[in-house]
Amino acid sequence: MRAVGMNRADVAFRSGHYLVQPNPPCGLGVEGSGVVRAVGDGVSRFQVGQRICILPAFQQGSPYATYVTAGLFPAAGLIEAPDELDDIQAAALWVSTLTAWGALIELAGLGTGDFVLISAASSSVGLAAIEIARAVGAISIATTRNPSKQAELLAAGASHVVVCDHSNVTGKVRDILGTAGLKVAFDPIAGRFSEALVPCMAEEGIIFIYGGLSDEPTQFDRRPMISKGISLRGYVLRQVVARPDRLERGRTFVLDHLRTGTLAPRVDRIFPLADVVEAHRYMESNAQFGKIVLTI
Amino acid sequence: MRAVGMNRADVAFRSGHYLVQPNPPCGLGVEGSGVVRAVGDGVSRFQVGQRICILPAFQQGSPYATYVTAGLFPAAGLIEAPDELDDIQAAALWVSTLTAWGALIELAGLGTGDFVLISAASSSVGLAAIEIARAVGAISIATTRNPSKQAELLAAGASHVVVCDHSNVTGKVRDILGTAGLKVAFDPIAGRFSEALVPCMAEEGIIFIYGGLSDEPTQFDRRPMISKGISLRGYVLRQVVARPDRLERGRTFVLDHLRTGTLAPRVDRIFPLADVVEAHRYMESNAQFGKIVLTI
Repeated sequence: MRAVGMNRADVAFRSGHYLVQPNPPCGLGVEGSGVVRAVGDGVSRFQVGQRICILPAFQQGSPYATYVTAGLFPAAGLIEAPDELDDIQAAALWVSTLTAWGALIELAGLGTGDFVLISAASSSVGLAAIEIARAVGAISIATTRNPSKQAELLAAGASHVVVCDHSNVTGKVRDILGTAGLKVAFDPIAGRFSEALVPCMAEEGIIFIYGGLSDEPTQFDRRPMISKGISLRGYVLRQVVARPDRLERGRTFVLDHLRTGTLAPRVDRIFPLADVVEAHRYMESNAQFGKIVLTI
Repeated sequence: MRAVGMNRADVAFRSGHYLVQPNPPCGLGVEGSGVVRAVGDGVSRFQVGQRICILPAFQQGSPYATYVTAGLFPAAGLIEAPDELDDIQAAALWVSTLTAWGALIELAGLGTGDFVLISAASSSVGLAAIEIARAVGAISIATTRNPSKQAELLAAGASHVVVCDHSNVTGKVRDILGTAGLKVAFDPIAGRFSEALVPCMAEEGIIFIYGGLSDEPTQFDRRPMISKGISLRGYVLRQVVARPDRLERGRTFVLDHLRTGTLAPRVDRIFPLADVVEAHRYMESNAQFGKIVLTI
């Protein structure tokens, strides 16, 4: 291993709030970059010395490590590290871009002129979603609670930035939408924040819930959801990675847009693995803008 | 007008529980059959004397009437009455079949070998869903609270019938599913009943909520919904009728299966319009098995 890209899942896993109960032996981390030291019998996709990235298909091992074994990270859960990227950038690429691509493009078919709301937009996934929306000609509305992130989000390519919380997101977003509606909301907050998005949705819009930062229950608001055919859809990257056809489409999309420069990993801060406690505390502070990376 | 097909919407509309606030002048009813007495300028799809059906595209008029006008029911909201059906059957055909088709086939892509749960299955929509599931080779699990309806539901073509409520539906359905899961749940109950279906869903399964018979709030159960990519999707027939391409596909599906006999309107009881109060009370009793029709 050369570097580890940190994700919210790492914090959730550590603190006992992950989606599923960890199944020991297991460890922290779902993403990283490294170099192949050996390949098993029957592996032809990778060669010794090749730079590769780990995808979060498997929870049994931990990439917070100097070496990982194929028993824990089989070839099916690996993907090449693009030549354009160094080890730190390569560790910050795949989870955020594939997560955003899977929901916005593969499942929702976001396209030119469509409105998409991206909440908690300063995360690595949020920033990838902003870039992907722009790449396909969609109009993004990025939301953040932190006024200091507004300028950075605009610079990152958001069409609009709204500083808001659950209490005022509806009105502020509707002011931007006018008579239009959101084709997609891409939301890791859930709870009252997701509920407040319902009046902003277009006919048959989809609210993807891919996290629970609010730690609140989420109500399905029956009448408007039925009248407008709106979906509340749970989503996690495994729904891309576990399906080879989707993973291949996502890989192609990301590599194509990486080459044209419309998509790029955005590294916020780098910590040596020895400072992993500080790195987790920094992620929990919500001060970051993009990816936190550990170097091995 | 010759006949009116009653729907749950009629009762909800009358009692002030409809999805949207009625916008007067308006009246009861969303479906019926009749004969064209006159056509306006520019109408070429219909001729005087032709037998037609009214679709629920417009809420301003009421088909509980001897005559209705094109101002309230324009040509775009009409569809032919199939020759095979009499006026009463024609009034009982379109809303139930198009509602079930739109969710199961058009939006969810139900097909051979897929499991679909159909709750409140003795309604006209539930019975249409059972027939449509069978027509495409899917495996239907019909649910009812009423043990006396079990045999009729099996006779109507359900693959399995489960007598249950929210407290025991999960276990009973999982016993049938084994290691499989529901691709689709088609549910007008909502509340705790919908919530109890989540553990029965397949990866990326869709729970369509198209009513609120339970009159309870519905929680989005975040962790399983995210882990399995499950959707809670609001749905109403307008999402088919308002889109000409969908309506045309639905019309073709229904007419094709009507001709082969795999789909048929199922009339439970007929009331003259003068007994409309009794007809509404009968619908509210939940004793029906299929469509309640008013004759004009």
